[in-house]
Amino acid sequence: MSDYFSHIPKIQFEGKGTTNPFAFRHYNPDEIIMGKTMREHLRFGAPYWHVMRNDLSDPFGAGTALMPWDDGSDSLENALKRVPVFFEFLNKIDIDYYCWHDRDISPEGKTLAETHSNLAAVCDALESEQKAHGKKLLWGTSCLFSHPRYSQGAATSPDANVYAYAASNVKHALEQTHRLGGEGYTFWGGREGYATLLNTDMKRELDHLAAFFHMAVDHAKKIGYTGQFYIEPKPMEPSTHQYDSDSAACLNFLREYNLLDHFKLNLETNHATLAGHTMQHEMDVALGANALGSIDANQGDELIGWDTDQFPTDIYMATHVMVRILKMGGFTTGGLNFDAKRRRESHELEDLFHAHVGGMDTFARGLKIAAKIVEDGRFDELVGQRYSSFDNGIGADVEAGKTTLDSLDAFAHSIQAPVVASGRQEMLENLLNDYIV
Amino acid sequence: MSDYFSHIPKIQFEGKGTTNPFAFRHYNPDEIIMGKTMREHLRFGAPYWHVMRNDLSDPFGAGTALMPWDDGSDSLENALKRVPVFFEFLNKIDIDYYCWHDRDISPEGKTLAETHSNLAAVCDALESEQKAHGKKLLWGTSCLFSHPRYSQGAATSPDANVYAYAASNVKHALEQTHRLGGEGYTFWGGREGYATLLNTDMKRELDHLAAFFHMAVDHAKKIGYTGQFYIEPKPMEPSTHQYDSDSAACLNFLREYNLLDHFKLNLETNHATLAGHTMQHEMDVALGANALGSIDANQGDELIGWDTDQFPTDIYMATHVMVRILKMGGFTTGGLNFDAKRRRESHELEDLFHAHVGGMDTFARGLKIAAKIVEDGRFDELVGQRYSSFDNGIGADVEAGKTTLDSLDAFAHSIQAPVVASGRQEMLENLLNDYIV
Amino acid sequence: MSDYFSHIPKIQFEGKGTTNPFAFRHYNPDEIIMGKTMREHLRFGAPYWHVMRNDLSDPFGAGTALMPWDDGSDSLENALKRVPVFFEFLNKIDIDYYCWHDRDISPEGKTLAETHSNLAAVCDALESEQKAHGKKLLWGTSCLFSHPRYSQGAATSPDANVYAYAASNVKHALEQTHRLGGEGYTFWGGREGYATLLNTDMKRELDHLAAFFHMAVDHAKKIGYTGQFYIEPKPMEPSTHQYDSDSAACLNFLREYNLLDHFKLNLETNHATLAGHTMQHEMDVALGANALGSIDANQGDELIGWDTDQFPTDIYMATHVMVRILKMGGFTTGGLNFDAKRRRESHELEDLFHAHVGGMDTFARGLKIAAKIVEDGRFDELVGQRYSSFDNGIGADVEAGKTTLDSLDAFAHSIQAPVVASGRQEMLENLLNDYIV
Amino acid sequence: MSDYFSHIPKIQFEGKGTTNPFAFRHYNPDEIIMGKTMREHLRFGAPYWHVMRNDLSDPFGAGTALMPWDDGSDSLENALKRVPVFFEFLNKIDIDYYCWHDRDISPEGKTLAETHSNLAAVCDALESEQKAHGKKLLWGTSCLFSHPRYSQGAATSPDANVYAYAASNVKHALEQTHRLGGEGYTFWGGREGYATLLNTDMKRELDHLAAFFHMAVDHAKKIGYTGQFYIEPKPMEPSTHQYDSDSAACLNFLREYNLLDHFKLNLETNHATLAGHTMQHEMDVALGANALGSIDANQGDELIGWDTDQFPTDIYMATHVMVRILKMGGFTTGGLNFDAKRRRESHELEDLFHAHVGGMDTFARGLKIAAKIVEDGRFDELVGQRYSSFDNGIGADVEAGKTTLDSLDAFAHSIQAPVVASGRQEMLENLLNDYIV
Ligand SMILES: [Co+2]
Ligand SMILES: [Co+2]
Ligand SMILES: [Co+2]
Ligand SMILES: [Co+2]
Ligand SMILES: [Co+2]
Ligand SMILES: [Co+2]
Ligand SMILES: [Co+2]
Ligand SMILES: [Co+2]
Repeated sequence: MSDYFSHIPKIQFEGKGTTNPFAFRHYNPDEIIMGKTMREHLRFGAPYWHVMRNDLSDPFGAGTALMPWDDGSDSLENALKRVPVFFEFLNKIDIDYYCWHDRDISPEGKTLAETHSNLAAVCDALESEQKAHGKKLLWGTSCLFSHPRYSQGAATSPDANVYAYAASNVKHALEQTHRLGGEGYTFWGGREGYATLLNTDMKRELDHLAAFFHMAVDHAKKIGYTGQFYIEPKPMEPSTHQYDSDSAACLNFLREYNLLDHFKLNLETNHATLAGHTMQHEMDVALGANALGSIDANQGDELIGWDTDQFPTDIYMATHVMVRILKMGGFTTGGLNFDAKRRRESHELEDLFHAHVGGMDTFARGLKIAAKIVEDGRFDELVGQRYSSFDNGIGADVEAGKTTLDSLDAFAHSIQAPVVASGRQEMLENLLNDYIV
Repeated sequence: MSDYFSHIPKIQFEGKGTTNPFAFRHYNPDEIIMGKTMREHLRFGAPYWHVMRNDLSDPFGAGTALMPWDDGSDSLENALKRVPVFFEFLNKIDIDYYCWHDRDISPEGKTLAETHSNLAAVCDALESEQKAHGKKLLWGTSCLFSHPRYSQGAATSPDANVYAYAASNVKHALEQTHRLGGEGYTFWGGREGYATLLNTDMKRELDHLAAFFHMAVDHAKKIGYTGQFYIEPKPMEPSTHQYDSDSAACLNFLREYNLLDHFKLNLETNHATLAGHTMQHEMDVALGANALGSIDANQGDELIGWDTDQFPTDIYMATHVMVRILKMGGFTTGGLNFDAKRRRESHELEDLFHAHVGGMDTFARGLKIAAKIVEDGRFDELVGQRYSSFDNGIGADVEAGKTTLDSLDAFAHSIQAPVVASGRQEMLENLLNDYIV
Repeated sequence: MSDYFSHIPKIQFEGKGTTNPFAFRHYNPDEIIMGKTMREHLRFGAPYWHVMRNDLSDPFGAGTALMPWDDGSDSLENALKRVPVFFEFLNKIDIDYYCWHDRDISPEGKTLAETHSNLAAVCDALESEQKAHGKKLLWGTSCLFSHPRYSQGAATSPDANVYAYAASNVKHALEQTHRLGGEGYTFWGGREGYATLLNTDMKRELDHLAAFFHMAVDHAKKIGYTGQFYIEPKPMEPSTHQYDSDSAACLNFLREYNLLDHFKLNLETNHATLAGHTMQHEMDVALGANALGSIDANQGDELIGWDTDQFPTDIYMATHVMVRILKMGGFTTGGLNFDAKRRRESHELEDLFHAHVGGMDTFARGLKIAAKIVEDGRFDELVGQRYSSFDNGIGADVEAGKTTLDSLDAFAHSIQAPVVASGRQEMLENLLNDYIV
Repeated sequence: MSDYFSHIPKIQFEGKGTTNPFAFRHYNPDEIIMGKTMREHLRFGAPYWHVMRNDLSDPFGAGTALMPWDDGSDSLENALKRVPVFFEFLNKIDIDYYCWHDRDISPEGKTLAETHSNLAAVCDALESEQKAHGKKLLWGTSCLFSHPRYSQGAATSPDANVYAYAASNVKHALEQTHRLGGEGYTFWGGREGYATLLNTDMKRELDHLAAFFHMAVDHAKKIGYTGQFYIEPKPMEPSTHQYDSDSAACLNFLREYNLLDHFKLNLETNHATLAGHTMQHEMDVALGANALGSIDANQGDELIGWDTDQFPTDIYMATHVMVRILKMGGFTTGGLNFDAKRRRESHELEDLFHAHVGGMDTFARGLKIAAKIVEDGRFDELVGQRYSSFDNGIGADVEAGKTTLDSLDAFAHSIQAPVVASGRQEMLENLLNDYIV
């Protein structure tokens, strides 16, 4: 194992009283909440791309991140050197799961064959590190958005040869995910969309995309991979407009092309707000279709119009997320993957730890608050009362499909003009604040 | 017929050279474009609510609009006095179609029965005016968002009695639409959504909404109404979040609840941009599902976050819309309804004419430009070329469903690394400007 | 005194353990924090317009608020009936200050003279209620945005007669504010801006606006009014663009026209975010010019593009505000005015109390957290360290004005290439969360 | 001279009828408009950074641009090889002016001294190319945002040594600008702002920034440089919040620190809309302070929240800009610098020409339309009429400073209640469309 973080102690739970920034105040992995450990509930994951490959450059400036293990080259050798450092990090921070993009872990080769063999070589190293440290792969994915050939899309490229290249990449990424025991496989279609409709045949591109997904589903079956497929919605950036813009757009696509049985959604907080929705909204839309799979846990700046991918520190947001995870019975294949990067100004190794400690403590706090909310049942009770007129009488008839416009019209004439009760939003917001401790 | 606009001449085509603000420069109703008159292509509609009922108040100020025919009361008598004024306006401005909300044309009564009889009385007057002037009803709708009882939704209200009231309103609005020969019936769910998720059961509300729509479809069949049902998407305002937030959200809902055969979309320009999409995007999404029905033609201010409902004057936008209408073969039941209001500062009667003249000329111009674009076929040709690699070879195999990840992987290994051709966005934008004359 | 809220108990502090929604959990008016009572720190104010006059209508629906004391008329008699109800509310909720708009407390008359005498009559009633209950006027203002005559501006109207009317209104509002001991007088220029630049002479309008403000300053001097003038920035709504769009725009205007000695800013949270800034930013800009006066305490929805004026419940926001208020030494003439309205669905009298209780508790909590932050001094210490290179050496020379480009160039050549230390944003965000309890 | 664009003809005016994409339809350099050639009016400039150094990478993908002259290294030799290619481009496209950032034209050296000597070496080459081809430098600037040392600001860095480095860079960039006859020198403060207020002392940073600007002004005087200093406002990106966020914020800062005599604004279209303003607004604000200097001509996507820097193709926007330039009497030191980049998908050399041809034609068209508008005087006449009540009587008294609140109050009592005339926005928008040809 590497030793790049020797100046950082292994992060451990010290509780609220501590002033040690390299300790958890709230995340106590073995503490039991509603019958499961916090570790089991939260299933934290770290993404290889942000931890290992994000040099914190931005469109106006060069990378700032200190990465003493990295020689800056795109060689396989350098790629292999990063692997143990990543696992050193996972151990220190006490995160069980991780995620990768094929091109973040291994370099493009001179030929397609070399590209795939590079991937396989790094996956050999990942496999042995996984075993050595008891870490698990939450999901894998193929990066179909970075290389110039994918600039106009991969599965929606206007060029059939590019489409074939994308299929080849996905085949190998999927097979390596399978080999590493990955619990899921994600598609994020950053370039599956358009820059301008002036040059775009949207319908034809969507047909191609659906065909691509069906081939992935068929290939999984062929190789015996039973992990969960995910789509990760995002409305824009890098593409001007992405097809998978939000939960509803993804579900519409999945329904149209008979893919809903095979895909769930991997929802990212910052992508939700870029699409004009709260994360709660996106989760409820997905839950309504039984399609909530996994979470990319980060935080956006709602005054800023791009994906800032900040580490999550908002206790309200973590609470809203965890209430929903608890109510759906917890994650199955999914988890809380920190798809988040430090600010460009936080370029030191310590900052990597501050960032993850903050994200983990925030979700631990959110979990404890959410558990209290769910166990108390006050919100459920109040919401249940609000709809109670549908529990019997005419409301129950509506739900049973026994009414018509004529029968409801007759009923409406028979009653006093109804006055709806207060929605009590302010009282409920106050009640929520009572739980924020 | 009333005579409130006697100081305004009947608006007629005078051509580009004119300086008369009360004349058309571009809209020449009988001019033939691609085999049809402009009148037949554009099917302009005027909404009763904006022309007759919008006093131009806003959340910070009282109404400013001069309406000398209106005594300011909510009486049936006053409602009936407005009807001939509206048709005087339609005649002067030379618009063939109109749209109404039940509550804009007729007042709420003391009882539900009186409410419905008020509606019937006004529809009597509308029917005779329609016949007298040869005007037609583009679509009707029931206003399920203004009355306090609908403050928490109508078909998604938590109160079953409110739901029954909404059903009663829709039954009567639908029947009156049928009687007046309305070519469509629209649902705009301004309150079908939520103010806060803290008090909301989204799934239960959506089930209720779907049941409501199915009842409307069944009732239409029962009464022999064969007009087109529309949903009009909008993401927010008045509700914090509306279920029908954009085309994709509507289509997802319609697919989930088996309603897609019965509904098309009525798309409004300003609602598209509020949802983060261009109007072109929303139209292409709808077209992909064969669900583009009608257009609420207006214009938003993209620097402003609410529905400004301005009259459409942007030639680019009108061009994009008309290209798509021409390509889909023209409107069938739908049309271009000016769901637009004058600015609050434009409170004089003349402004009503300036506003509509501008909107009509803009779309006439858009039609002429679009016809040239479609007839020239340059854009189609360039787009076709862009995807030509899918016309045969491996691309055609993909489209024919003959490929797998394995076969594409093998193919990818057999070719040179592909280099996608330039998307030529800037050239295409220049080409578009060549048509803007 | 009226008795409309007899079913609501007087709101009192019960502490965190209580489940009584009609009690304070955090606001303990007499509790001493950093040497002053919470009451003295927070100086809560209630606005007459929202509490008494907001019927919760919105652009798409009628008012829903229950106001049993109000006959719905615009009569002076009705206006006078509202006064004791308002003070009954202030007593029950235990708020010491209030604010008014002239037109919210008293109706427009048939003549300007009658309008002014209506105002005077209501101010008589307010004066006696103030005395009877020990309540104080935080600030008054004239509503120069609601009447149609002000649709194109008041002090920026293109019509000189409208300008004169506005001056007359301000003269009387200012005099009544003076008579009632108002500690401030506010200008909110909702219509001082433009709907379109096509018809606007911006420079001429700004000259008129400055002349107007100078006349107000002169008039205050003349009548012996020594209260503080405020401008309340807002970027848009109702006007498409308002001149006082944010703190910087206001300060620029005040500097240009030599008004900075006479005005401070009344900052509203939701207006800050509409302008693309955090409230913290707006406060720091104002503090930098010694121009932070008072706060309109509310909360926006950052996913929504208009002024939602929600009651403040976000503990983070209240903390950020209170840290700055404590650091500036507390309010002098200003206070925390709840310029907030209940949601339209919260139409019952109880909701008025839930809303204010929540806002007061949130700021009480923010005050306690802020006091701990200020007393601990951790943030100040870390920020001080960050800039410590300017405390001596070359940095101190820069601050002392002793350097030139040449001297700094020579210095730069003499040192090692500098490496800036981490900005530690994530660590600081974690530290902030440690205080959120 | 290099010969990389030999397959592209020199771009020449062919007029509206042409279908040649490598020709101007509207830009006829020697055509006289209102007494000056189009060339003199428009003063087009090309930025070295976009033309030569933008590889079209984005945060999610590698560069795509074909740059056959570039070996990809950061060597001085490579930097010098780019210079003749750039002038070949300027010649082919027929653009007279250019702009540079120091770090885009020349590489950072191992030492500060080497950095400065690299700059000098490239400027030698630029100087001889300028002379050879009759090209001129519109403005120069120092890139104080790309190097990691500037990640937390340059003139607002918390590190005094970084501040000194920035001063050294500016000294040399300013001297080279002077030597090359640069007509202006620009500061764009992309990192002069903050990432989080938690670690920021805004007042101290602004004091440092003002000191920095004063040193630049003093140095210009010392070396005899009489070109114009510009600040280029932008609200965010890369910094979360930039101090120079919009015109008003810049002017406020310049007034506060007595810099307004020395600086004008360089306004960029896309920065205006990111700040929530139209470009027209930003221009009018600058014009009101006699501070409109130069234009970064590009175009944003208002549905996207970051700086897309697209080439300008919107005829409306170009018209609005050119009306204002004509009315201010034309540019003096400023011009129309295309601070714009091709889309990442437009990676071929041809696209560089399509993009600039489109931008130049759009502004040529805008100029011709604007000239017609200004010469016709219809808008000026209508705006003048709108404010005519201030030309004499009470309005003139207001403008002459002869009124008080008392005198206006008395006047207001003496008149009929005023009714403001319609603002006629719709009619004016129609009138504008009459000019768009
Ligand atoms: Co993600
Ligand atoms: Co993201
Ligand atoms: Co509409
Ligand atoms: Co609308
Ligand atoms: Co306010
Ligand atoms: Co507000
Ligand atoms: Co620029
Ligand atoms: Co830019």
